[in-house]
Amino acid sequence: MSLILHSPLDMHLHLRDEKMLENIAQASAHTFAGGLIMPNLVPPITSKEEVVAYKQRILKAIGKEQFTPYMTLFFKSDYDKAFLESVSEEITAIKLYPAGITTNSEGGVSGFDIEALRGTLETMSELGIPLCIHGETNGFVMDREAEFVSIYEKLASAFPKLKIIMEHITTKESVEALDRFENLYATITAHHLMITLDDVAGGMLRPHLFCKPIAKRPEDREALRKAALSAHPKVMFGSDSAPHPQHAKESCGCAAGVFTAPIALQILAELFEKEAASQEKLQAFICGNAEKIYGIKAQPKKVVLEKKPFKVPQRYNGVVPMYAEEEISYSIKEVHSGQ
Amino acid sequence: MSLILHSPLDMHLHLRDEKMLENIAQASAHTFAGGLIMPNLVPPITSKEEVVAYKQRILKAIGKEQFTPYMTLFFKSDYDKAFLESVSEEITAIKLYPAGITTNSEGGVSGFDIEALRGTLETMSELGIPLCIHGETNGFVMDREAEFVSIYEKLASAFPKLKIIMEHITTKESVEALDRFENLYATITAHHLMITLDDVAGGMLRPHLFCKPIAKRPEDREALRKAALSAHPKVMFGSDSAPHPQHAKESCGCAAGVFTAPIALQILAELFEKEAASQEKLQAFICGNAEKIYGIKAQPKKVVLEKKPFKVPQRYNGVVPMYAEEEISYSIKEVHSGQ
Repeated sequence: MSLILHSPLDMHLHLRDEKMLENIAQASAHTFAGGLIMPNLVPPITSKEEVVAYKQRILKAIGKEQFTPYMTLFFKSDYDKAFLESVSEEITAIKLYPAGITTNSEGGVSGFDIEALRGTLETMSELGIPLCIHGETNGFVMDREAEFVSIYEKLASAFPKLKIIMEHITTKESVEALDRFENLYATITAHHLMITLDDVAGGMLRPHLFCKPIAKRPEDREALRKAALSAHPKVMFGSDSAPHPQHAKESCGCAAGVFTAPIALQILAELFEKEAASQEKLQAFICGNAEKIYGIKAQPKKVVLEKKPFKVPQRYNGVVPMYAEEEISYSIKEVHSGQ
Repeated sequence: MSLILHSPLDMHLHLRDEKMLENIAQASAHTFAGGLIMPNLVPPITSKEEVVAYKQRILKAIGKEQFTPYMTLFFKSDYDKAFLESVSEEITAIKLYPAGITTNSEGGVSGFDIEALRGTLETMSELGIPLCIHGETNGFVMDREAEFVSIYEKLASAFPKLKIIMEHITTKESVEALDRFENLYATITAHHLMITLDDVAGGMLRPHLFCKPIAKRPEDREALRKAALSAHPKVMFGSDSAPHPQHAKESCGCAAGVFTAPIALQILAELFEKEAASQEKLQAFICGNAEKIYGIKAQPKKVVLEKKPFKVPQRYNGVVPMYAEEEISYSIKEVHSGQ
């Protein structure tokens, strides 16, 4: 039995830089038609020159694969109109990080004073540049995202024409917020559809499943599944695939991030089948919704999956993926780029 | 400034066996006057001969230190009266593990059918043998202990003369249960007084702070602190110090357990001072309450602590302790055994 996905998009992707970029870019570029590239390098991407140069490095790393890197800027509240106009052609969105909340986010926003953000956000609104947000407070780890919902709501109310994407949502509170504000959207990862905190810390501690936001409660995962499996039109797939070297995951202080790029489509196919969701819903979740939300047109790519057990490798170029050495039930059979 | 503690007792201690026992026994035996020794070896301690032999191995491992190992049996519902009578002189308590809930607990109790447990528990009640319980269900990791409170209550009601010790409690629900049933008691660890889930998984993932029960929410830690710092008469110190080799903590599946034996008294002294609790309360929490609850008399030992920074070693004989390479503010100055 085979399953064809058209032009899958990964609307939240960490490709890193330098050696790591070279090691992992093809894992996404092989099966995805494009991805929204996170700007949290060291230092973060904050100028047009950096956007253009990073895009070139990505294109070089993916080599002959057909893959569109949708570029982003790291949000700063002092971006002015002239700058945003000049960069708008090069980017698909701007990503806002609360300061210090995750990997390489030290230069992010502290506090969410609407007036301090107004200039930049109104210009983004005018220019039609979506705002992607890593929505966590610095509260207790299980409460951070739910606490941030009130900030999402404050921003959504203050800037009603600004498209705000709640990134990698993990809670029922975020899912519920989607339907309260017209201009709130969301990405959902593959791993948050699969795991809860039980998988991270309920048996042995599993560093390769440790991510930010941390996986939450069973009822949260249920809410995420309901939104993804029904292809809620304001929800799209974003893997948040985030590679770290193995030693940074297996040590006395493990870095946050799950590397799912090479297996995301297979495990989504498995989940949608298991939960009796249709192929059309998967297609919308993996591409159609993102095209509508971002107003983009993914390049043609046809990914043929087949229901055939696949043992996930222990490593991809030194990076341990989710489900390493476990068997998943779908495999990539072939990929065709172009019409 | 110095602080004298008399005959500290650790009423929940894992000393393991063989090489690990030899490596870590002295860390407890040096500063504690005695400890309640957990029976979850492989295989677990279930006979008089095993109790006696394990006690001898412990005494050999602690060498010249003056330390009383208060022995326990691994609970089985088929222990009969003749057996319990014959073993009662050798043990201080019997420890019950729900099956599969923590390290080496595979042979524990499945389900809590009062009638299936009645024979053994009534005999224990008659003989005055306390029942120590690792109280967690197999539910969601953050709910397991709170869910188990109803089982504590069922047992406490059904066997009103049986002393039941809720081991290493981590939640406000367990603290509250203490005052609802006369025959419920509790141990509290040092690490659960210090950390919440934020410390384990809120920043980097910290395998050396991963334990079962997992550290909970700030309000849970507050409830534990309130009980310990006030030396609630039904609460006593039990470290649950649980050594694992470093490689078993820093790998892709990390074992549960925090090794606190060598630093427990120092960090408790620090906490009680910081929270303005009196030395008398600390003395009751660390010894007096346990003596009353268990009806034991700790052997004389005088531990002199001083307020002097101590850098915790990276390892004690291959085992990474809590706060490894961090500085704590109290040091052990000297220890006097005997009157």
